[in-house]
Amino acid sequence: MQNPILKPGKKNHLSGDFSHAEVTLANRNNGTLLETLNYDVTPTGAHYLLNHFDVPYVADDTDWQVSIDGEVKHALAINLEQIKALATKTNTSKTLRVTLECAGNGRANVSPRWPSQPWQMEAVGTSDWHGMPLKHLLDQTALLTSCTELVFHGADHGIDSGQVHNFARSLKIADALHDDVLLVWQMNNQPLLPQHGFPLRLIVPGWYGMASVKWLNRIEAIDHAFDGVQQTGTYVYRKDSDDAGIPVTTIRVKSLMVPPGIPDWSSRKRLIKPGPVVLTGRAWSGKGVPISKVEWRCDDDQWQEATLHPLKATAANEHSYAWCKWTDEWHATSGKHILSCRATDANGNVQPVEPPWDQAGFGNNAVQTVEVWCDNY
Amino acid sequence: MQNPILKPGKKNHLSGDFSHAEVTLANRNNGTLLETLNYDVTPTGAHYLLNHFDVPYVADDTDWQVSIDGEVKHALAINLEQIKALATKTNTSKTLRVTLECAGNGRANVSPRWPSQPWQMEAVGTSDWHGMPLKHLLDQTALLTSCTELVFHGADHGIDSGQVHNFARSLKIADALHDDVLLVWQMNNQPLLPQHGFPLRLIVPGWYGMASVKWLNRIEAIDHAFDGVQQTGTYVYRKDSDDAGIPVTTIRVKSLMVPPGIPDWSSRKRLIKPGPVVLTGRAWSGKGVPISKVEWRCDDDQWQEATLHPLKATAANEHSYAWCKWTDEWHATSGKHILSCRATDANGNVQPVEPPWDQAGFGNNAVQTVEVWCDNY
Repeated sequence: MQNPILKPGKKNHLSGDFSHAEVTLANRNNGTLLETLNYDVTPTGAHYLLNHFDVPYVADDTDWQVSIDGEVKHALAINLEQIKALATKTNTSKTLRVTLECAGNGRANVSPRWPSQPWQMEAVGTSDWHGMPLKHLLDQTALLTSCTELVFHGADHGIDSGQVHNFARSLKIADALHDDVLLVWQMNNQPLLPQHGFPLRLIVPGWYGMASVKWLNRIEAIDHAFDGVQQTGTYVYRKDSDDAGIPVTTIRVKSLMVPPGIPDWSSRKRLIKPGPVVLTGRAWSGKGVPISKVEWRCDDDQWQEATLHPLKATAANEHSYAWCKWTDEWHATSGKHILSCRATDANGNVQPVEPPWDQAGFGNNAVQTVEVWCDNY
Repeated sequence: MQNPILKPGKKNHLSGDFSHAEVTLANRNNGTLLETLNYDVTPTGAHYLLNHFDVPYVADDTDWQVSIDGEVKHALAINLEQIKALATKTNTSKTLRVTLECAGNGRANVSPRWPSQPWQMEAVGTSDWHGMPLKHLLDQTALLTSCTELVFHGADHGIDSGQVHNFARSLKIADALHDDVLLVWQMNNQPLLPQHGFPLRLIVPGWYGMASVKWLNRIEAIDHAFDGVQQTGTYVYRKDSDDAGIPVTTIRVKSLMVPPGIPDWSSRKRLIKPGPVVLTGRAWSGKGVPISKVEWRCDDDQWQEATLHPLKATAANEHSYAWCKWTDEWHATSGKHILSCRATDANGNVQPVEPPWDQAGFGNNAVQTVEVWCDNY
């Protein structure tokens, strides 16, 4: 019998109903609850979670070690206590409030659908991440001028596309040395949770989540383009399987609405009474580019501009990597309505109404739609 | 146009692929990651989560109030600070380590399938819950002898079966006055997370999760049988829609295995090498009844008895409401295998191999099966 794990067949797009494998992934990976968009910082545990392989079991963090090797003058192995001591000694510890989104968010709304985690719109969250800039650790190793990329290896181990590997992603040197790329050991003032990378992970603000490697245990300095499974096999925008494609990198402009009114348990459709209804939600873009406008509309009416409430700058929010709150008021009338919202960023990027085509459903930043029934119940 | 929320049609069973609505629920509700069964206490945020309606937004807990009314001598309204002060004054604060499971866990493995949250086997978790026994709060009100049940009302509000209501469940007086039924304000030594009932919830050890009402804001003493939607409309074992049924109450005996080896990302099938493989997992039953035996088998081989490792009794674990760890070793041979495990409790209850029939898929404690490919990769 052929082993379907090491010799997988060709993947085919799906339409209509969802497969058993998609539901297994949806049960395992966690979407946020859309009503928690009311919180500036997503409640711990309600942040979206997408793990490719099993969460490594780490009983305690005292012997967690990161090796740095390859195109460096001084290869080294350093444990977490030493990293924390370095942050203290160099006075470089840092907290950033960062909105992370899964590159596959919205995949299930692209038709036909790629067989993978069937995110609809819930793969987003905002946390306060605490650690130190990666570059201060790299200073200890002296990168050689031959080094062009850094590969970040996680301890999570498994199979994708028939290849056994640890999760690993690279960044070009210039991206990796950015002040805000952090080695992180705390989330929301607590040690990292096991499923979020305990005891050490990377946070790459402004990029989709795949760049923020969890359970980081090796940094490899290389002089060529990394071609790992998670770098060139997936997380690439492709029109079809023959397309060489473009790497998935920073987050596209997007917004979400807290579904107004009250929910029906099983359909998640919403019920409201006629009259004034507060609409609110969040909007964000990649690379810390601010949101310049959020609009919403009811059915096919004109887009209405909402009021923006950017988070006040704080130590945790100095660089605008966190989402922006928006609010407005809608006068609801009886009947069925479809509400939508769309954001525009300071670079003029605006959400499309229809999902951009990508064969694996990456980067779908199309406008969300919320079905609402208005009734004098 | 008829409003399908307030006038829903008849529900029909499903077979085969999963609907859009089922996937929306699976993305929203969180299953645990099966590898976190390695932890005695489920990592915070990896505990399963099933919320019927929206998580109420509670900015802070200082003015959270619980009213107690109905068949009581002294109706009262008491806030959380006063409840904590009462626990301190009466020296009755208490922590229990409790395994909770959703009554619908395993629903998707019952055929034909009820259209609801399509749990496969991941709706379980164990936490340290801290609060005080409910009965000490009830002492303040003096229940009348006419009182036969207590109804616990949550702040979560929505629609099920066309009926607008707050989530509410009742317990018979004798069950509610049990020493281990707790009013809880901490989970794993932290304030409750919003999605787990912040700032105050009930924990009813040994019962399926629906009894442990979240966002508790009213306790109603009544002299009749409560007939709320969540008491008699659902959470009832029924063979078909004409069956008067039997209420869902305590947890049925069950066990799970940490899937051995390494996972294939998208199919979640497992790959191992030939040779010795450690098998491990957890087993639990309702009402604190201890686990007496866990067995496992490969394919249709004889059942093998595993070694049990009950948690040591601690302040948080005095009453055995937490799951029991089990381990054994398997000598894996090349090829495809199906691994299973089954538990027996001290009352002689044993897991069935086939799911017990229930029309809504409640209480499915059939043995888990794990597909493993053994290969010299």
